[in-house]
Amino acid sequence: MFVNGLFCKNPMTVTIDDFVFHGILTPQSTNNAQGSKVTQVSATQLPGLNTLGVSMARVDFGPFGLNPPHIHPRGTEVQTVLEGTLYVGFVTSNQPNGGNKFFTKVISMGDIVVFPQGLIHFEFNIGNTPAASLVSFSSQNPGTITIANATFGSEPPISVDVLSKAFQLDPKIIKYLQSTF
Amino acid sequence: MFVNGLFCKNPMTVTIDDFVFHGILTPQSTNNAQGSKVTQVSATQLPGLNTLGVSMARVDFGPFGLNPPHIHPRGTEVQTVLEGTLYVGFVTSNQPNGGNKFFTKVISMGDIVVFPQGLIHFEFNIGNTPAASLVSFSSQNPGTITIANATFGSEPPISVDVLSKAFQLDPKIIKYLQSTF
Amino acid sequence: MFVNGLFCKNPMTVTIDDFVFHGILTPQSTNNAQGSKVTQVSATQLPGLNTLGVSMARVDFGPFGLNPPHIHPRGTEVQTVLEGTLYVGFVTSNQPNGGNKFFTKVISMGDIVVFPQGLIHFEFNIGNTPAASLVSFSSQNPGTITIANATFGSEPPISVDVLSKAFQLDPKIIKYLQSTF
Amino acid sequence: MFVNGLFCKNPMTVTIDDFVFHGILTPQSTNNAQGSKVTQVSATQLPGLNTLGVSMARVDFGPFGLNPPHIHPRGTEVQTVLEGTLYVGFVTSNQPNGGNKFFTKVISMGDIVVFPQGLIHFEFNIGNTPAASLVSFSSQNPGTITIANATFGSEPPISVDVLSKAFQLDPKIIKYLQSTF
Amino acid sequence: MFVNGLFCKNPMTVTIDDFVFHGILTPQSTNNAQGSKVTQVSATQLPGLNTLGVSMARVDFGPFGLNPPHIHPRGTEVQTVLEGTLYVGFVTSNQPNGGNKFFTKVISMGDIVVFPQGLIHFEFNIGNTPAASLVSFSSQNPGTITIANATFGSEPPISVDVLSKAFQLDPKIIKYLQSTF
Amino acid sequence: MFVNGLFCKNPMTVTIDDFVFHGILTPQSTNNAQGSKVTQVSATQLPGLNTLGVSMARVDFGPFGLNPPHIHPRGTEVQTVLEGTLYVGFVTSNQPNGGNKFFTKVISMGDIVVFPQGLIHFEFNIGNTPAASLVSFSSQNPGTITIANATFGSEPPISVDVLSKAFQLDPKIIKYLQSTF
Repeated sequence: MFVNGLFCKNPMTVTIDDFVFHGILTPQSTNNAQGSKVTQVSATQLPGLNTLGVSMARVDFGPFGLNPPHIHPRGTEVQTVLEGTLYVGFVTSNQPNGGNKFFTKVISMGDIVVFPQGLIHFEFNIGNTPAASLVSFSSQNPGTITIANATFGSEPPISVDVLSKAFQLDPKIIKYLQSTF
Repeated sequence: MFVNGLFCKNPMTVTIDDFVFHGILTPQSTNNAQGSKVTQVSATQLPGLNTLGVSMARVDFGPFGLNPPHIHPRGTEVQTVLEGTLYVGFVTSNQPNGGNKFFTKVISMGDIVVFPQGLIHFEFNIGNTPAASLVSFSSQNPGTITIANATFGSEPPISVDVLSKAFQLDPKIIKYLQSTF
Repeated sequence: MFVNGLFCKNPMTVTIDDFVFHGILTPQSTNNAQGSKVTQVSATQLPGLNTLGVSMARVDFGPFGLNPPHIHPRGTEVQTVLEGTLYVGFVTSNQPNGGNKFFTKVISMGDIVVFPQGLIHFEFNIGNTPAASLVSFSSQNPGTITIANATFGSEPPISVDVLSKAFQLDPKIIKYLQSTF
Repeated sequence: MFVNGLFCKNPMTVTIDDFVFHGILTPQSTNNAQGSKVTQVSATQLPGLNTLGVSMARVDFGPFGLNPPHIHPRGTEVQTVLEGTLYVGFVTSNQPNGGNKFFTKVISMGDIVVFPQGLIHFEFNIGNTPAASLVSFSSQNPGTITIANATFGSEPPISVDVLSKAFQLDPKIIKYLQSTF
Repeated sequence: MFVNGLFCKNPMTVTIDDFVFHGILTPQSTNNAQGSKVTQVSATQLPGLNTLGVSMARVDFGPFGLNPPHIHPRGTEVQTVLEGTLYVGFVTSNQPNGGNKFFTKVISMGDIVVFPQGLIHFEFNIGNTPAASLVSFSSQNPGTITIANATFGSEPPISVDVLSKAFQLDPKIIKYLQSTF
Repeated sequence: MFVNGLFCKNPMTVTIDDFVFHGILTPQSTNNAQGSKVTQVSATQLPGLNTLGVSMARVDFGPFGLNPPHIHPRGTEVQTVLEGTLYVGFVTSNQPNGGNKFFTKVISMGDIVVFPQGLIHFEFNIGNTPAASLVSFSSQNPGTITIANATFGSEPPISVDVLSKAFQLDPKIIKYLQSTF
C-alpha cells in the first residue's frame, strides 16, 4: 500500500538512531562521466525526517566535475560550499519581457547559494582539485530531474521530430545525443 | 512595493468583470518557429483569481506545431484537447533504478492529460490542421520554463564548457545552439 | 482502511492511462428536472490527479437548463463556456455592511468565470439550444452541495420548524418543498 | 492597499491588549427575527489572531431562537454549548449514492459539536429560556453565508426564473420570499 | 500501520456521535501538585475533528492552581476564561535587541487570550476559588511540552552538566530538581 | 507597514548577490557564558530565501561550550556536525503514558541529527577543542526560544510565585536565578 509520502514508524519503537545519519562529510567517488556525485539524505536514509518538510544531500565534484543542469520539481535548494570553488548559476523562468535571465557567480568554501524551486541550475568545479557541497531542501521529497538525461535519455526516447524541432537541431544530432545517454 | 503574490483590489470597487475573462476559445496566431502559442489567464489577466490557487491558459498549435519540452516549477497542469490530435508526454524524475521514464500517448479532442508538478512535458500537433487545448494549473502562478530556451538561450548565455559537458556535445554545436536562440 | 484523500497506486504499475481521461467534450444527457448534468473528473475517474491539488468537471445544459445554486466547500471553481450563453452569478458572504452582493453576468462561448471558494453560485442556460462548460477546481476533492437539495431534500429531513423559521415560510410550503425533493 | 489577509501591526508597538478580548461570556440581545445573535472575534476584534489560523465567536439564542442554516466557506467550526439545549445538525455534500445525509442531535450545556468545513449547518434553541454557545474556527477568516439570505435576499436579487426552477417553487412564492429578506 | 495524523473512519459507518463530545463544562479534579488539570478534546476523543485542523481542551484550576509554563509545538492557543481570575502571560522569542518580552495580564471570566504558536505561556489562578478555561487550538494535534517536566523530568534525565550550565545553577540544585520530577 | 513575512524586492533590481551569502564556514567567537554562538542566515541576511520556506544557521562551540536547551516554534532543525564531538538530545512532548522521553547521542564530524519542530533540544561540545555545526530549518522564520532565558530572564520577569510552583523550587532560588539572567 502507498500513501502520499511515507508511512510512519511505530512511535513506540522509534529510537535516536532514526534521527541520526552518519558520514555526510565523507567524500564520495566522482569517477563517472560528469565527474560529480549526489548523495541523498531524505526520509528513506534518515527516517526521522518523515513529515517534517526538509531533506539534505551532499555533492562531490572531481576536478572540473559538473553537477549538470537540473531542477527540483518540489523544493528550493540551499547549497553550502564545503571545499573548492564552484561556478554556479540558475536561469529564471520565461517572462513576457526578458525572462530566462542567467544568474551566476563563482563561489567558494563557506559560501551559500539559493536555487529557487523548480529553476534550472548547475554547479561546476572550476578547480583542478576536488570540491564538495552540503545541500538543504525545503521539502522532504524535492525530486531531481537532470535536463539532459530526461530530455535525451528517457526510456523510451522522446520522438526525434519533437526534439529536433524544440532544439532546432538536425535530427542526426538528436539521434546522436540519444545514443549517448 | 512587492508582496508574495499580488496586492488585492479594494473589495468595495470589485465588480463581476474582475471575475470574467473573454476570448479563451478564440484561436491565436501560431506563426512562429515552434508553430504554437500559449495564452495565459492568471491573476494579471483575470484579477478574481488572486489568492485562489488556480489559473488557466490556452495553447494553439499550427499544423505540426510544437509546445516544446518545458516545466512549470510551481504547479500541476491539466490539459484538455479542444481540437486536433496531439502527441503528448512527460518524463518522470531521476530514480535510483529506472527513472526518466517517458509516459506518452496520442490524444485527441475531448481527452484530458495530467502533467504532474515540475515534470518535463510537451505537446506536438501531429496533424496538418490546427489544434488547440485548454489548460488548468493548480497554482495562481505556476511559471513556465522552456527547456531549450532556458538552457541554450539564457541572457547572458551559460558557459559553453558546462553545456558541452552536460549534453556531451562538441562545443561547436553548443555555440551553434546558443546562436539560434 | 481510509486515509485523508486516497491511497496511491503502486508507482511501478502506473501507466500513461492513469493520467488520461477520455470524452470530456462528449455531450451528456440533460434529461432531468433541472435540465443540466455535471460530469466529474477527479482522482476517482483520473487517478493521476491524486495528491496534485486540481480536478475537473463538465457541465451540460439543455435548453433553459439550470445548474442550480450550489457551493463547493473545499475549492474555487473556474468555468469556461464551450457552447451557448449562460446567465451566471455568485453571492458574496455576509458582511457587517452590505454583504450578500449578487455578482452576475451573461457570458457565452469562450468566456471564463471565477466562482471563489465556498460562495453560492449557479449557471442558467438562457438559450433554447444546448450549452456546455468545462470546469477546473483548485482542489482534488472540492465537493458539491446543492442548496435546495441539501436544505429541503436531506435524508432524514431537517425539522419543518427550523426551515419555516429560517426561510420565513409557512410550514405547509416547507412540507410541500420537502415532498418534491 | 490590500493584501491577502491583513497587514500586521508594528511589532515594536504591540502590547498584551492586542492579544486579549473582553466580554465573550456577556449575553447579547437576540431581539430580531431569528432570535439569535452571532458575535465575532476574529483579527479585526482581536489583532493578536492575525496570521495564526484560528478565530472565535459567540452565539446567543433567545427562547426558540435559530441560528439559521449557513456555511463557513473557509473553515471548520467547533461549537461548545455554554447554556441551554440546542437541536443542531449538518448536511453532508452530494454523493453519487446517498449524499445529503442529515446528521443531527439534541445537545446541551457542556457538549461540543463539529461542523466540517463548508457544510450547511444550523442550531435551534428548543427551550423557552436563553441558550448560548462559544465557537472556534480553523481559520482566521472563515466567512459566513446564511443560506436563506444569500439565496433570497441578495442585492440585487437572483432572477426569479433561476430560483423558481432550483427550488421547484411557484414564481409567486419566490417573489414573496425575496420581498421578505 | 501509522500515517501522518490518523486513519479515517469508514464514511459509511460514521454517525453524529463521531462529531459530538460530552462534558467539556464538567469540572475535573485538580488534586495534584500544580493544582490544575488539562482535559484534551482532539481527534482521539472526538473523531470528527480528524483532518479538520482544529482541536479543543478544558483547563481546571484549583485555588492558586497553576498550568505551568509550557509550549504547544504545532499550534496557536486561544483560551477563554469560563470562571475565576487568572494571571496569564507569554514570553516572546529571542531577538537581536530586546526579545524575551513578557506579555502578561490578569484576566477573568469572559476574557479571551491568544498564545501564539510555540511561545512559552502559563495561567495561574490568583483566586482562592476554582477557575476554569476553554481552549481552542489551530491544529488537530498541537502537542504540549511542560517546560519544567521536559527539562528536569525527562526519562532518562538530561546530563547534569548541561542543565547546570544552561541554568547557571549548582549541580546539586539540578540533581535536587531532577529528583522532584 | 508590515506583512506576514517580508515584502519582496523589486524583481527588476534583484541580482545574484541576493542569492549568495559569504562566510558560513568562518569560525565565530564563542567568548560568552555558554561558550557557543549562533549565526543566523535567514531572509534578512540572504534576501533570496524570502518566501521559499527554508533558512540556515551556523553554531560555534568553544571547548565544553553549550547551545543550551531551546526550541524553534515554527520549524524543524537539521544539524550537521562540521567539526568536533557533540552530546546532543531532544525531549519528546507530554504523552498520557511515558512522554518526555530524552533521545540522545554523541555525534561527531559528518553526522546529521534531526530536531523535530518545537521540541526542546540542545548541543554540548564534550571536547576540549572547538566544534561547529551547520543548521537547516524547514521554515524561512523558525524563531528561537532559549528555555532558561525566556523562563528566568524575561523582561519584565515572570512572577516568582509562578516559577517557584512550576519548578518546585524555593522562591529564593528563583530570585537568584532571575538575577543571573
